[in-house]
Parts: sequence; C-alpha cells; structure tokens
Amino acid sequence: MRKILLDENEMPKEWYNILPDLPEDLPPPLNPATNEPVKPEELEAIFPKALIKQEMSQERWIRIPEEVRDIYALWRPTPLIRAKRLEEYLKTPARIYFKYEGGSPPGSHKPNTAVAQAYYNAKEGVERLTTETGAGQWGSALCFATKLFDLKCTVYMVKVSYHQKPYRRILMETWGGEVIPSPSDRTESGRRILEKDPDNPGSLGIAISEAIEDAVKNEDTKYSLGSVLNHVLLHQTVIGLEAKKQLESIGEEPDVIVGCVGGGSNFAGLSYPFVKDVEKRGTKIIAVEPAACPTLTKGEYRYDFGDTAGLTPLLKMYTLGHDFIPPPIHAGGLRYHGDAPTLCILVKNGLVEARAVKQIPTFEAGLIFARTEGIVPAPETNHAIRVVIDEAIKAREENEEKVILFGFSGHGLLDLKAYDDFLSGKLQDV
Amino acid sequence: MRKILLDENEMPKEWYNILPDLPEDLPPPLNPATNEPVKPEELEAIFPKALIKQEMSQERWIRIPEEVRDIYALWRPTPLIRAKRLEEYLKTPARIYFKYEGGSPPGSHKPNTAVAQAYYNAKEGVERLTTETGAGQWGSALCFATKLFDLKCTVYMVKVSYHQKPYRRILMETWGGEVIPSPSDRTESGRRILEKDPDNPGSLGIAISEAIEDAVKNEDTKYSLGSVLNHVLLHQTVIGLEAKKQLESIGEEPDVIVGCVGGGSNFAGLSYPFVKDVEKRGTKIIAVEPAACPTLTKGEYRYDFGDTAGLTPLLKMYTLGHDFIPPPIHAGGLRYHGDAPTLCILVKNGLVEARAVKQIPTFEAGLIFARTEGIVPAPETNHAIRVVIDEAIKAREENEEKVILFGFSGHGLLDLKAYDDFLSGKLQDV
Repeated sequence: MRKILLDENEMPKEWYNILPDLPEDLPPPLNPATNEPVKPEELEAIFPKALIKQEMSQERWIRIPEEVRDIYALWRPTPLIRAKRLEEYLKTPARIYFKYEGGSPPGSHKPNTAVAQAYYNAKEGVERLTTETGAGQWGSALCFATKLFDLKCTVYMVKVSYHQKPYRRILMETWGGEVIPSPSDRTESGRRILEKDPDNPGSLGIAISEAIEDAVKNEDTKYSLGSVLNHVLLHQTVIGLEAKKQLESIGEEPDVIVGCVGGGSNFAGLSYPFVKDVEKRGTKIIAVEPAACPTLTKGEYRYDFGDTAGLTPLLKMYTLGHDFIPPPIHAGGLRYHGDAPTLCILVKNGLVEARAVKQIPTFEAGLIFARTEGIVPAPETNHAIRVVIDEAIKAREENEEKVILFGFSGHGLLDLKAYDDFLSGKLQDV
Repeated sequence: MRKILLDENEMPKEWYNILPDLPEDLPPPLNPATNEPVKPEELEAIFPKALIKQEMSQERWIRIPEEVRDIYALWRPTPLIRAKRLEEYLKTPARIYFKYEGGSPPGSHKPNTAVAQAYYNAKEGVERLTTETGAGQWGSALCFATKLFDLKCTVYMVKVSYHQKPYRRILMETWGGEVIPSPSDRTESGRRILEKDPDNPGSLGIAISEAIEDAVKNEDTKYSLGSVLNHVLLHQTVIGLEAKKQLESIGEEPDVIVGCVGGGSNFAGLSYPFVKDVEKRGTKIIAVEPAACPTLTKGEYRYDFGDTAGLTPLLKMYTLGHDFIPPPIHAGGLRYHGDAPTLCILVKNGLVEARAVKQIPTFEAGLIFARTEGIVPAPETNHAIRVVIDEAIKAREENEEKVILFGFSGHGLLDLKAYDDFLSGKLQDV
C-alpha cells in the first residue's frame, strides 16, 4: 500500500495540548510595560476568550468543535504516503512516510488553525479578522477559513510581495479577503512610515503592527496569528494524531521524525504527539531550519518580542533578536526571528534536535522528490526533505531499516518561481 | 460523510472501452491522401503499437498494467466528495457529488492517460516523447509521467503562452521536460513560419505540426496526444469506474452527470461508464462547452482534420472547421475545434446532451464553489459547475431530490490570473 487513508470518522475528536507534558514549566509571556506575566484579560483586545483560554490551558486534551471538524472534513484526514519511489532512488533500507498536508484548499497545513480561529471568533460575535502575511500562505489560509464562517478578513501583505507575488494575493481575494499592501494609509503606524518613506517596501514587522492596530481600534475586529502561540500549535496536532493512527494501522513506529520550522506550527503539529516516544523508545525528532535564519541552532534563549515593532508580549524563546532581518530566501514561511516557546523548551531539554540547512541543498532535495514521487514541494517543505534524504542515506550506509516520518507541509505550485531560479542557477546558497 | 474514499486495492484493474457499446459503428479515421481508412501500421511512425491496438480495440475491458496502477496510486483512487456546503448555499434538495481529479501532482485528470502513454512507449523502447501544449496543463502532465518512466519529453508550447504563463512552463522543467516556445527553429514547419514572420505568437496548430514532425523525423521518438483519440478517453475511464463504485457504496445512483468538454477526455472518463444508465434509468448526461467554441452545439458532423495544419488523419466529428480560431477564453483546455469521435456519436444519438455556456457565468459559478466548498476550480471545471448549479436550482424549483454527479477536472491554482480578471471586471463575456 502506498497510501494509508483514514475515514472521516477516524479524524481526531480532540487536539493534544503539550503544556502539561513539557519537561519544565513554560515561562509565562510578560507584559513589556510591567515585566509581569500577561493576564488573560489583557489579550482580549486582540483575541477571543476561547483562544486565550486555550493559550493558557493545562488540559491535555481539548475537544475539537463539531463545526471545525465539519470543515476539516473538506480535506482531512490527510493521507500518509509511503515514498517508495524515493526509497528506491536512494537505494535505502529505510521506509519513508510523509504526512501530506498539501491537499488542503490553500495547499498547506495552515488552515488547521485558521479554521479553528475563525470558528471561535465567529462564535464570540467577532465580525472581522486582521492578520499579516509575507508570501501569502498564512493569509490565504485565513481568507479561506473566514469565508467559510462568514467573517470578513483583512490581510496586510508586505508590499513588495503584494506586487511580486500576485497569485496568492488573487487567491485571498477569490476567497473574499481584503488584501492591503503594507505599509498602508489605513493605520497610524503605516501612515507614519509612508510619510517618511513613501516607497517603503514593507516588512512582516510593519504588517503585524498594522494588523494589530486595526484590530485594537475596531470593536468588531480581532487579530489572528498563524504560528508560535500555544493555541496555534495545539490546533495543528491533528496532523500528528492522524499520522500516529495511520502508522499504528500498518504496525509501524517512527524512528526518526522530521519537520521544517519557521515559527514551529507545522513541526509541532506533526511531532508533539510523538514526543513521549523520545524517552520511551529513542525516537529522534529533528527540527530543520534555514541556515539563513538559524534561530534554534544559533539563537539565544531569552525573552524577546514576537514582532519587529515590539507590540506583542515578551516571549521566552530562542531568538536572533526581534530586529533580525533574514536574507530573502524563498522559504518565506521559515523567515522568523524566534520560535514557539514550547518548541524551545523541547530543544533546550534535548527532546528535539535542531539542524540548519542551506538553500541550494534544500532545492536539490525538493527536485529529487518532485522527480521521484511526482509532487512538487513548497520551499519550506524542501528543508524537511533535505534532512530526510540525509537520514535515509545514513540508514543505507549503516544498513539500518529505519522508519522515517516527515511532515509535508505544503505543495510548491505557487512557489514555482523559486524552482525557476534554482534550475537556472540564480539561487543564492545562503 | 463528506468524502467517499476507496482503498488502493479498490482501484479499477481494467479500463472501460465504449467502442463495442456505441449505438452505431464508429466511422473509421481516414487517410487524407487516399480517403481510405487508416491502417494501423500507418500510425506507427508516431504511436507505439500497444496504443494503436487500444485505439482500434473492440474489447470492452482492457487490463491496466501493474506499473501504471502503481503510479496511479500516487494520487488515486481520487475522492468522491459531497458538496454539502454548496447544496446548503443553493437551498437545493439535490445531492451534489463531485469526483475530484485536482489532487494529482499536475492538478488535473490529464495524468490518467499521460502515465499510461508513457508506460507503453517506454515498454516499446521509445526514448523520447513530443507533444504540444497551450496553457500547459497537458504538457505538464506528460512531463510528470515521462519523468517517472525515465523518458525524455519535449513540449512545444505556444510561444505567447510560454512567455505569458511561466508557471506551467517551470512546472514542466521541474519535472525534467524540455519546453520549446513554438514556432521554433527546431523543425522545418517552425522555421518556415519564422522566416516569413519572426514574431509569430504561435498557435496550437503550429505546435502540433512541430511535435509531430519532431517525432516522425527521430527514430527513438514518438508523439503523444492528450485528448480526442479513443485510447486517451479509454485511459480516463478510471474516473467514472471509481465514481460508480463510490456512489454504489453509499447506495446512490446519479440522475444527472455533468462534465466540461474540450476534446472530450475528462468528460468521457467520468461519464462513459454510466452511458448504459441513460436508457436503463433515464440518467441525464450533460456535456458543457464554452459558447466561444461551441463544437457540439453548433458544429457540423463531418470528416475533418484533428489539427490546424492538416497533418492528422481525418476524423468524423462535430467540428467548427480545423482552421477555426476561438476567442482567447481562459479555459484553454476547451478551445478545440472538434471533439472525440465517440462522444460525437453519443451526442448525435441523443445519449449525451450538449450545452454551451458563456465565460462570465462560468466564473460566477466557480466563485460560488470556491467560497462554499473552499476549492478554487480551473476555468474548464467552472463550465461543469455552472450547469450543476443550474440543475440544482431547477431541482429546488421542482422540489426534486436529484442526485447530481460532476467531474472536477482540475484545480485553478495556476489559473489565478483568470480569477483576477474576473474579480476586477476585465473578463469578456464570450
């Protein structure tokens, strides 16, 4: 069997919350004005109560609402696929499985949380969500999700991406989203920047400031984030819970689990349900990040802002500094200066191993995958595939029948420009 | 249940050949030089023997080789999905199901035949395939398939599309294909055109001529076609055979079956396995074509060339004339002057009803679909969705619990420019 499928009724009914199972307590987010732990009510200007509760919950299992599962069913459970042709190409005794999240309508894992966030906001009477987006993967997932719950959605899209990457902008508009090139004249922070520098190309930091300001200033509006926070990672655990069930159904247990890391949501979604196996059976869990933005491998573990402008609470995490600007690698989803605090705890305690890889080897890996398994991966996913190939070659050299599981976070059909650059030798090896 | 899935071992083991079940004999293809039926050996310069045999076979069931099923398994069986949210939006008592072919790596139904054609060519020692492509959907499917069987692939891509639609060109190259803007200096027919008109933008007709010439002149090379011919439609019947099994598993029988038609391969793939039900239980099968290229609704039933340049055998079909140039609608896959001869027989005998729809109503339908079911359809697929919505509204008005099945031929992620034109009011209503 190449694909292991689950029926709709085998979709998880609960998300897995790793908080009670962390090897040490999670340092609380701090209010930068007081240096005191943030109180739940301080977050109500930007998040609905249900999500704030999830953010701080110590419950191990949290029920997935029926309405969310009903939308998940548009594409979930996602298939677990054995990469048999890749194994043959690599002549490895390893068995390689990937959990394919590219089949969601926006083409990535992002809607797993976008749908949940849209649901809770809609339930609490919110009428509009704001968010920021770089290349557009998160923005398109949120436009998709809000449309299905009849919410409006305003996406502040980094201006240079807005003009250079029209496809995801159009996708957002097709789902009814309002996409604003940022910096814009819609917010004070945007106007302030435009006054000084009318041609400012924008940045994720500026876009976050605009999205938060828009949410704070409008009664009916909240803000939505696509990674890093506990509740976001929580929603993504459907990935790993399904994968676990799928592997069990064929009597397999993963020896190595690999995922790419930007803020950590796709990685956590796949790997958190397996973290207990690290001590129990020596499972190796590898987080792969770009060498151009090496937060886990070279960052400092300390309190820092989640955004560039310094509007968010302080989070304790591995960080390159909130003003760090990574080179413009194609894996836009991995260009984040910090990481999810829960993931940082796991790395710090040796439960997750972090590796950084350069851009060209990731595209070499992605091309091998596209030409053996047929699916063109997103540049982010290529980071995971690079390490999977390295591990499969190691298994061949050591003649070990390893079971490797990796997270296929998204397809690359809207990132083909990156492959063009790679194939024509224009890609920088950062 | 929203999705009806099949296990890999439930994938069809045989294709269904409609030839023995046609209501009248299929008029043979004619050699234009002699006006005599084409002999199998006359086709061997461009096709492998196995495909010529399939083209002329009267066997009702033709075994699918294991090697082909093994590649199909990368994305097949495809899900049959109930469009519950669309039904609710339309307040229709109809139950709407779609067979989703957008999950294949190239994003459409095209690889169902591309894989089979690549397999038979590889088996007969062919080393390279040539083909033509307009917008690139067929070309990308063939590059995908040839790469998996270690064949080379040369795609003559209409020059104006080559420059205007780089994404599918890059996709072909990512799968190792060689993509040549046509007219080119690689062939005599190309050179002849360039001498007279160096800036010629190209056409599908010219690209076909170049691809055929390239195949005829090179010993190790054959030519591949993505629609119209019997063997191509044959390979697509996995779609309908799976859909039939899926509907049976939930006790449903379709009252109305809808598909879009260019050359007819996607339409035939879904509907041919149901054609017997037209007389048996009054099933209505509707072929939807663009009003801009109304072959089945306004064409003449006569012998005509399959290509613009007049290099192919003469086929008896509904045709607008082989020199007909349709307006540049976004549904590039439906801009063909003729139709599959078997489909024409069914239309002529009243077993299939043909309808033509204008461009703007198809995008209105596609937008409703994207905003209810979440998936953005290809412009071709929007033609089917238009008629599905019309039929569902009719079912509401007549208060009838119809079961509607339609073919979702491909997703629209590489056609977003078309949605942009539509949303910004730039789309012509032809």
